[in-house]
Amino acid sequence: MSKIFFDSGISLDGYFAGDNRSPQNPMGGVSGKLHQWMFKQKAFWKHIKMEGGQEDGTDGTLIDDVFARTGSYIMGKRMFEEGEVAWAEDLYEADVYVLTREKREPWIQKGTTTFYFINDGIQSALEKARESAMGKDIRIQGGANTIQQFLNAGLIDEFFIHIAPVFLGSGIRLFDGIEDIYDMQIMEVIPSELTTHLRYKLTKK
Amino acid sequence: MSKIFFDSGISLDGYFAGDNRSPQNPMGGVSGKLHQWMFKQKAFWKHIKMEGGQEDGTDGTLIDDVFARTGSYIMGKRMFEEGEVAWAEDLYEADVYVLTREKREPWIQKGTTTFYFINDGIQSALEKARESAMGKDIRIQGGANTIQQFLNAGLIDEFFIHIAPVFLGSGIRLFDGIEDIYDMQIMEVIPSELTTHLRYKLTKK
Repeated sequence: MSKIFFDSGISLDGYFAGDNRSPQNPMGGVSGKLHQWMFKQKAFWKHIKMEGGQEDGTDGTLIDDVFARTGSYIMGKRMFEEGEVAWAEDLYEADVYVLTREKREPWIQKGTTTFYFINDGIQSALEKARESAMGKDIRIQGGANTIQQFLNAGLIDEFFIHIAPVFLGSGIRLFDGIEDIYDMQIMEVIPSELTTHLRYKLTKK
Repeated sequence: MSKIFFDSGISLDGYFAGDNRSPQNPMGGVSGKLHQWMFKQKAFWKHIKMEGGQEDGTDGTLIDDVFARTGSYIMGKRMFEEGEVAWAEDLYEADVYVLTREKREPWIQKGTTTFYFINDGIQSALEKARESAMGKDIRIQGGANTIQQFLNAGLIDEFFIHIAPVFLGSGIRLFDGIEDIYDMQIMEVIPSELTTHLRYKLTKK
């Protein structure tokens, strides 16, 4: 049975992205601050099909684990548009369901990544993602608004957050308007130099 | 040399207190959700001069440590007003500087706690608190607005946060409008069942 999860980096003040996001300014330009720990990992560069990184330890294993468990992805239109112009070919190596009002034929990248454009909401995307995942887990990739929709629909089974020791002061918060509908259990706390990894398990009340 | 610090419990979505705070509704009624880990500790009840608690482990030691290191306190008027009607006599066992527009003579509780009412801002409160602390540390007790003022004035040396695995959805956030003026280092990450303890060291950029 597929678990539905997300895995996101945030700042200490809870921001998932900065102001003024656009395809020309992905994440509002704050990736360097939030995801610095990730950029140091060889595992990260391997998955985006590039050379890079200096470290090959626990932080890297976490990145590998998330790719390995994920059978399909769901993301919002804005995140897709930022990525469409920037991502490596076949980054996801899986089906990706994009929530959008735009009607568009599936976009098959070289390799095994296909983007499907879903016009009828999160439940519909979830059904398709579940079929595609074939028992592996479904990652709600983001952005914040998409994750909030899944959280408030009571659909999330667990999540990882990675809290960077930085204040952004403004931007888009990951946890905004989240309803208190889950019992939550702290499953894992993994210290690191440039972030703190926290894993939570959710049970709908 | 005294360090200036705060030590606060927040929810996963960053809330320090709920909506509609008042002396009749301290913390907006969310203490049970945010501070559950604390209420289980014998150390907590000992410091508020009552019998209670079931646990006597790492979480309790953290509470003892904070009381032991603190030489004087600074707090906002709203937190004071909530506490004035509720706190145990001589809770702080130190001088407490209350930021307020109200002119009022010092209030000496039975024991060693004296509340001083400061009308001329955080720097003035800090000077007095520093003298009173005699080399021990100065705790910015809260509320969120007072902590934000000290953070944005570049005056905080370190802080503890305790993140409870709960979403409040609304209320008063601890980190709101915080400027990116510090280099921050993660000093300690202490897992627990009902919260995650995180300690940061700050250096002004």
